[in-house]
Amino acid sequence: MIDLRSDTVTKPSEAMRKAAYEAEVGDDVYGEDPAVNELEETVADLLGKEAALFVPSGTQGNQIAVLSHCNPGNEIILEEESHIFLYEGAATSIFAGVQTRTLKGERGAFCPEDLAGAIRKDDIHFPETGLICVENTHNKAGGAAIPIENMMVTAQIAREHRIPIHMDGARLFNASVATDISAAKYAQLTDTVQICLSKGLGAPVGSVLAGSGLFIDKARKWRKRLGGGMRQAGILAAPGLVALRENVERLADDHDNAKLLAEGLAEIDGIEILNKVETNIVLADVKGTGMTADAYVQLLKEQQVLANAFGPTSVRFVTHYDVGKGAIKKALAVASSLTKQPN
Amino acid sequence: MIDLRSDTVTKPSEAMRKAAYEAEVGDDVYGEDPAVNELEETVADLLGKEAALFVPSGTQGNQIAVLSHCNPGNEIILEEESHIFLYEGAATSIFAGVQTRTLKGERGAFCPEDLAGAIRKDDIHFPETGLICVENTHNKAGGAAIPIENMMVTAQIAREHRIPIHMDGARLFNASVATDISAAKYAQLTDTVQICLSKGLGAPVGSVLAGSGLFIDKARKWRKRLGGGMRQAGILAAPGLVALRENVERLADDHDNAKLLAEGLAEIDGIEILNKVETNIVLADVKGTGMTADAYVQLLKEQQVLANAFGPTSVRFVTHYDVGKGAIKKALAVASSLTKQPN
Amino acid sequence: MIDLRSDTVTKPSEAMRKAAYEAEVGDDVYGEDPAVNELEETVADLLGKEAALFVPSGTQGNQIAVLSHCNPGNEIILEEESHIFLYEGAATSIFAGVQTRTLKGERGAFCPEDLAGAIRKDDIHFPETGLICVENTHNKAGGAAIPIENMMVTAQIAREHRIPIHMDGARLFNASVATDISAAKYAQLTDTVQICLSKGLGAPVGSVLAGSGLFIDKARKWRKRLGGGMRQAGILAAPGLVALRENVERLADDHDNAKLLAEGLAEIDGIEILNKVETNIVLADVKGTGMTADAYVQLLKEQQVLANAFGPTSVRFVTHYDVGKGAIKKALAVASSLTKQPN
Amino acid sequence: MIDLRSDTVTKPSEAMRKAAYEAEVGDDVYGEDPAVNELEETVADLLGKEAALFVPSGTQGNQIAVLSHCNPGNEIILEEESHIFLYEGAATSIFAGVQTRTLKGERGAFCPEDLAGAIRKDDIHFPETGLICVENTHNKAGGAAIPIENMMVTAQIAREHRIPIHMDGARLFNASVATDISAAKYAQLTDTVQICLSKGLGAPVGSVLAGSGLFIDKARKWRKRLGGGMRQAGILAAPGLVALRENVERLADDHDNAKLLAEGLAEIDGIEILNKVETNIVLADVKGTGMTADAYVQLLKEQQVLANAFGPTSVRFVTHYDVGKGAIKKALAVASSLTKQPN
Repeated sequence: MIDLRSDTVTKPSEAMRKAAYEAEVGDDVYGEDPAVNELEETVADLLGKEAALFVPSGTQGNQIAVLSHCNPGNEIILEEESHIFLYEGAATSIFAGVQTRTLKGERGAFCPEDLAGAIRKDDIHFPETGLICVENTHNKAGGAAIPIENMMVTAQIAREHRIPIHMDGARLFNASVATDISAAKYAQLTDTVQICLSKGLGAPVGSVLAGSGLFIDKARKWRKRLGGGMRQAGILAAPGLVALRENVERLADDHDNAKLLAEGLAEIDGIEILNKVETNIVLADVKGTGMTADAYVQLLKEQQVLANAFGPTSVRFVTHYDVGKGAIKKALAVASSLTKQPN
Repeated sequence: MIDLRSDTVTKPSEAMRKAAYEAEVGDDVYGEDPAVNELEETVADLLGKEAALFVPSGTQGNQIAVLSHCNPGNEIILEEESHIFLYEGAATSIFAGVQTRTLKGERGAFCPEDLAGAIRKDDIHFPETGLICVENTHNKAGGAAIPIENMMVTAQIAREHRIPIHMDGARLFNASVATDISAAKYAQLTDTVQICLSKGLGAPVGSVLAGSGLFIDKARKWRKRLGGGMRQAGILAAPGLVALRENVERLADDHDNAKLLAEGLAEIDGIEILNKVETNIVLADVKGTGMTADAYVQLLKEQQVLANAFGPTSVRFVTHYDVGKGAIKKALAVASSLTKQPN
Repeated sequence: MIDLRSDTVTKPSEAMRKAAYEAEVGDDVYGEDPAVNELEETVADLLGKEAALFVPSGTQGNQIAVLSHCNPGNEIILEEESHIFLYEGAATSIFAGVQTRTLKGERGAFCPEDLAGAIRKDDIHFPETGLICVENTHNKAGGAAIPIENMMVTAQIAREHRIPIHMDGARLFNASVATDISAAKYAQLTDTVQICLSKGLGAPVGSVLAGSGLFIDKARKWRKRLGGGMRQAGILAAPGLVALRENVERLADDHDNAKLLAEGLAEIDGIEILNKVETNIVLADVKGTGMTADAYVQLLKEQQVLANAFGPTSVRFVTHYDVGKGAIKKALAVASSLTKQPN
Repeated sequence: MIDLRSDTVTKPSEAMRKAAYEAEVGDDVYGEDPAVNELEETVADLLGKEAALFVPSGTQGNQIAVLSHCNPGNEIILEEESHIFLYEGAATSIFAGVQTRTLKGERGAFCPEDLAGAIRKDDIHFPETGLICVENTHNKAGGAAIPIENMMVTAQIAREHRIPIHMDGARLFNASVATDISAAKYAQLTDTVQICLSKGLGAPVGSVLAGSGLFIDKARKWRKRLGGGMRQAGILAAPGLVALRENVERLADDHDNAKLLAEGLAEIDGIEILNKVETNIVLADVKGTGMTADAYVQLLKEQQVLANAFGPTSVRFVTHYDVGKGAIKKALAVASSLTKQPN
């Protein structure tokens, strides 16, 4: 199987397994797990933040951020195809009691006028704008890296209105590697950041939420309430540290493979590439093949290639470290054969 | 003062005051207030619904509808400038735990493709689409009556996906009078309706929520929780009955006055009318006067004319039964004088 | 019918109806209703608070207090048979996201040790104690007036831990009249108070919530979200003012009538009075008659006397201004006849 | 250090570490992690339930149970010192919007009359009783095993009122080993059960929630919303399987050690054992030493023995597999020396 459904399917490397095996652990609810503590400090340093918190998933990291930044009755501003809005089961409204206000982005990035216009004035009828969320890279926009200039404008608007910014940086290191701008430089423009260890970085489980010391104190309590307080979590944190040490730079390979895949797909009759492939995601429109995305994905699967339907006729391919250049070429051969007409 | 800020400012008529004075009342929490019971039956009949519930405000009527139709984690679909989304303090997210999904409408009406596309599939990442909300007439779209054909398409899409529809009909009778389509005919296309007695109909306080008997049973309990269970509420219901008897047909006068106002304003240099004036709302863009909406509204106020800023350079005027044709002409004279250049 | 089910059934007097008829009104959502403004100022003065807010019901007044004082994840301390805990549909947990911690009271009053022991320490596992609620008089404890000394101790404990106190004073004036301690003196011991106009005071609809100016600003927004923002609410506020002017002192009659009723009932075979009758509530245990409370209440009803079952064998009678001394005697005659054995 | 603070501090055994190292994993959000699937099936079988779900913590397992069983505005019945009520940060009220109704238990077990009396009738003022929660063994009651007869009565009352029961069985296997009644036999009396792998069973992280297939489908979605959906979670599930295979029977040793500890402590002047030591928890009152619990715990710590203050003068000791008989004796020697008077 060549699994291009998501970079979440990456399996832990030998080094990660070994790290889990050897991890020095303790009870993290008491703050006594050395591997977790090291991971949290490492990520805080990497992102230039005071503190960090290990959480079982990116979704929980994002939810904790909203719960810690906001009060019920606040409104949060999100890009209209952001993960928090589309894929987290309306959790921000259930748990934090906040209303989602979505803006149409340009490749995932806010239009500054729209953002400024969406911030609420003080009025008895209005929710208070409590948080702005940025997703970088932006999944639905095809792994688009939000331009640093755009983030700077967003940060300025937020500052003027004293509204905090949270970055869903599940794939922030992909943005960093693609643009050669450090993760810390991006993170500096937002109050809090969530990064994911179990996507392209390949760790088995976990994300890390970073921010000010005060913020992380609040976040730690919300983590407990959400049931994310784990005991000997070093078993997960140790491979997470390996992921950070060994797998950031090599995201460049995933990006190269994505470009290779996109170029190959573009040559196939009936397939059109929808996104500028900057990182590890390729969005292909298969309308021209006469198939729906579901049907196309099914055909691929019969030939041992896995991808995800992403819209009625669009298919998402995600490259990652379990799929090398050779596998990409095989996948292209399969894709190519699917639509070849019999003579 | 000529008060064109809103039709909510209408003062009760002599007949309404007399009705309040003479109202036969009881304890409505025990279901024993005759005036309330009569009002609820009257509205249910008018809208062709099994049952109805008197509530202290349109906001509460809408909130009860969402609470009664939805479960936490549902997503509700709303036009992006609807009252429930813009003006109810994010209450649906706080109280019902639902996420708001907004669609850009055409004069307040959904584009059918957008609506169909916004309904969620069954997936562990997705909220379930739990309710579609329609606002008729649509306030922010300038009192636009949602075309009955558009509502029929919405109803069909909803039916196909087994999703209920709630109509925020705070100004439904304005739509009915403007289009000569009965309120019941509109209401038939939705599961539940909220109508407001204290806008153009002129009653002092209250709205009525209508739907199936089962729905109203649930709604009654949510009303209690929200603190809308009132005791001798007949004091309000009795004038509400007068409003329904005496003031529906005369909404036509408000519509005529709104057209008169719009025509007059359109002739003033620097003012542009933004909406097709179908009912009792006029939206005027004052950009050409070089003023902001706030400044313009302030100038009007100094001349005893009240209106509301509705956007950076747009001003809303609402006609109602406390403002006759003569007052409209005076308001126009004021508006005209404001931008006249000295020779 | 002699209706002793509750003091909520009181019908508006001629003076109240006239006040409604003549009320000078405006749009209270804009803060422009003179009768509402006068009522709010009057109550604030009466209770020695900076500001007050008119709300459609006692339940809404209490819910707004909890929403304004607390954050989600707080714990509120309540007497275990308090109205907020027993009779408000779990609204504090749904809307404010707070956990209810109940203490067994002594005639509705907290045991100071229990109260101090129930306040949470700072710990990642614990909710934060966010509010203490006192009910005075206490309905379930049979209209018991909470002793001022007890309230002083509660206030001291609260102050030490910097926890606010809210008083559900739906029947605070009953306590005041019974003890000859002013409502303001009680109110001074709590941060916020809710008083009800439509119980023994006889107004048709409404309660008033009082507190600091800052608190009432917050409360006003929560009222809007809960749908308690009403338009020409002076129609209700004006009779409310009459109620405050004319009906506070006369609560003493209700108390006398309650004592008369209790003494009469106590002489009936099989009936035992459960409460010390301080105010306008009589709790009678009918176990000795061999009947359940439901059966007993049904028998009374057949003889035109209404009361409420309050427990398996306990029945609640509430005196109020629509039931005079004569009616009490008739009710006693009925009660007496019910259990008389045929010779 | 002899760490008797909690059985959560247990460190993974060599076999568990090896299992983590070798675990066959996949993406559990896609349902493709073989170790997780095996663990879920194993626990479902052990407890006689249709299905099970791996979650990162006992708190999350409990919260998911409440979210899946209840609607907002429900009331849940809990023992007044239960973990869900005391130690989960009010999460059931924040997230599920349910009100907590607590009953004083007898060694953690409900009094049947109290339970029956606490179930709400159908009334517009009342929350609906939505769930009964049982904790077995009961932590605060000193690891008390809830008698199976008591659970049978609870089950019968629940069945009569069609109310589901959830068992917080974080330490259910301790009850089972102590009473020689199978976990399945206990579980059969409740609709859902949460068991913890990381307490006495010694796994590094995780709990399992079991119930009907339909329930687990709902639970899986709530887990996603709470951020408990983990990727290659087999890294945790594999040691969890080892824990179930190797460490259930050996809980008997912990129980023996707890008895040994209790007997020893009881002989020390000023110390009184508060609980009948049935399982692995010892509650000691140190009042007689003249010290507070905090001071006593601090003294122990200086001598390398860790325990938790559990009340003003009560201290909790928990035995587990990292503390053998020898260590217990050492701890006793320390405790004994602390209060010895100098000659």
